[in-house]
Amino acid sequence: MTTKIAAAHQVHQILADYDYFLFDCDGVIWLGDHILPHVVETLALLKKHNKTVFFVTNNSSKARDDYLEKFQKLGIPDVDKTEVFGSSYALAVYVEKILKLPKDKKVWVLGEAGIEKELRALGYTTLGGTDPALVADGLKFDASHPALTQLDPDVGAVVAGLSLNINYLKLSATLQYLLKDNKTIPFIATNIDLTFPSKGMLLIGAGSIIETVSFASGRQPDAICGKPNLSMMNSIKADCPGLKENPKRGLMVGDRLNTDMKFGRDGGLDTLLVLTGIEKEEVVKALPSETAPTYYADKLGDFFELLQ
Amino acid sequence: MTTKIAAAHQVHQILADYDYFLFDCDGVIWLGDHILPHVVETLALLKKHNKTVFFVTNNSSKARDDYLEKFQKLGIPDVDKTEVFGSSYALAVYVEKILKLPKDKKVWVLGEAGIEKELRALGYTTLGGTDPALVADGLKFDASHPALTQLDPDVGAVVAGLSLNINYLKLSATLQYLLKDNKTIPFIATNIDLTFPSKGMLLIGAGSIIETVSFASGRQPDAICGKPNLSMMNSIKADCPGLKENPKRGLMVGDRLNTDMKFGRDGGLDTLLVLTGIEKEEVVKALPSETAPTYYADKLGDFFELLQ
Repeated sequence: MTTKIAAAHQVHQILADYDYFLFDCDGVIWLGDHILPHVVETLALLKKHNKTVFFVTNNSSKARDDYLEKFQKLGIPDVDKTEVFGSSYALAVYVEKILKLPKDKKVWVLGEAGIEKELRALGYTTLGGTDPALVADGLKFDASHPALTQLDPDVGAVVAGLSLNINYLKLSATLQYLLKDNKTIPFIATNIDLTFPSKGMLLIGAGSIIETVSFASGRQPDAICGKPNLSMMNSIKADCPGLKENPKRGLMVGDRLNTDMKFGRDGGLDTLLVLTGIEKEEVVKALPSETAPTYYADKLGDFFELLQ
Repeated sequence: MTTKIAAAHQVHQILADYDYFLFDCDGVIWLGDHILPHVVETLALLKKHNKTVFFVTNNSSKARDDYLEKFQKLGIPDVDKTEVFGSSYALAVYVEKILKLPKDKKVWVLGEAGIEKELRALGYTTLGGTDPALVADGLKFDASHPALTQLDPDVGAVVAGLSLNINYLKLSATLQYLLKDNKTIPFIATNIDLTFPSKGMLLIGAGSIIETVSFASGRQPDAICGKPNLSMMNSIKADCPGLKENPKRGLMVGDRLNTDMKFGRDGGLDTLLVLTGIEKEEVVKALPSETAPTYYADKLGDFFELLQ
């Protein structure tokens, strides 16, 4: 059973019950390049009540600095870099802290600039990714391309995420590194969302792209850094001792059951699902209590609207 | 248990035991653009002994006419269009004969020119595929592209195969048609080979590309037209009544256990695996009798060499 937030007294209760608000971005704060209604006012309301806010996104196409720019452009002021946890950042931290990849090793990237920037910020050299030498020239594909025939012996990890720049050369080069050295080079994914909601459509998600190279190589990623993986939650808690001590004072707000809601629940937080993303109200209402969110709402901006 | 063809008397026995020889192409006749040693002489030997020969390929990037050109270019003379069964042709026949798609319906193609040509030869209009309007411009992706936002209401089938021209726009547009009309538009694949051997490497195969849109849409193809699907075998038998009546007089020659050898075995033929493709001798020798090929050989050209 879940409860719909549809009255002012419920919003007051939430403001009383929670100190830490974790927000997914795509489908909650914005849809593509459009901010959702009354999100700015709702975030201002939380700040006014001295709530701690984190933005937790699986979209690895941007680095944290890029997200700060996006927040500003959409009229959300005063977001600090320490409040933004993206799967590209989580992946870079994983490669450094968990994988302990030496800095003289290189990282092969199937993905976008966000992953490259976060890895480079930690001192790694990246290959693949947005390298212009790997941009496909129309319909041509050349199996003699050096990216396929001259594999770099210093590559110590293969990382993959959402790739709007995907092409056959990059996929096949990624496959070579996944097969190399008896399939022993670590394979790390940012996230495994099947689809990527954009402008009212479902586009191909990171998980579906990663599935191509997984299927061809017979390998699943050794680790998945984004939601619902708890390594991202543990990073947030490390930065926020209050949440770590008392996770029930935290509320995870998202638009996806299998990533956002699971992420919050597994981390010991309460959860709020908003219907501005991919889930439908009739599905949410019918969920058994193990998987139902604590609350749901038509949109995040209802917090502000219901108090008017 | 399987038997290695390694002596002249074995070749004579095979010439006595079989009238119909079915050949996979990639990894058996050629590797990419290079013909394998003594294949021309072996095919001439079979013709001299009045054997019936078919070329059965899962590579959908070419149409039958393109294959005739390739045979000629590689020095294999006198191949007739009726001797060539490609998965692009099998797919077009499936769409017309089994799916019975009306000719005023359109077919959305995730794939190459081979599929487009075979469908057009049967009178269908194709969308997607090699359309230059869908070629990605470098790193840019535009979610407002008409291929995503203006779906064609006349599309009556989605077909997919090997796509060296793959990009995020084409994958996402394919996903829109797979999701459209409550996922009811038929979804047909040429083949599901995981990998595509080329120049000593394993590149991304049709099956791994199709997996991306399958995973994102939650749909598996409704039909797979290439090997090991028996619809391709049935087409060959329909053209060759002698093989239909007496499949044990037929030998399927290929380089893959899970497609070629299964295809031959399921069709009631004996099988010969050659080691010029992706399988290794130690794996083949260790196979249980249910999945072991009848024979194996280092290469097809050994037929000719052993008789010298």
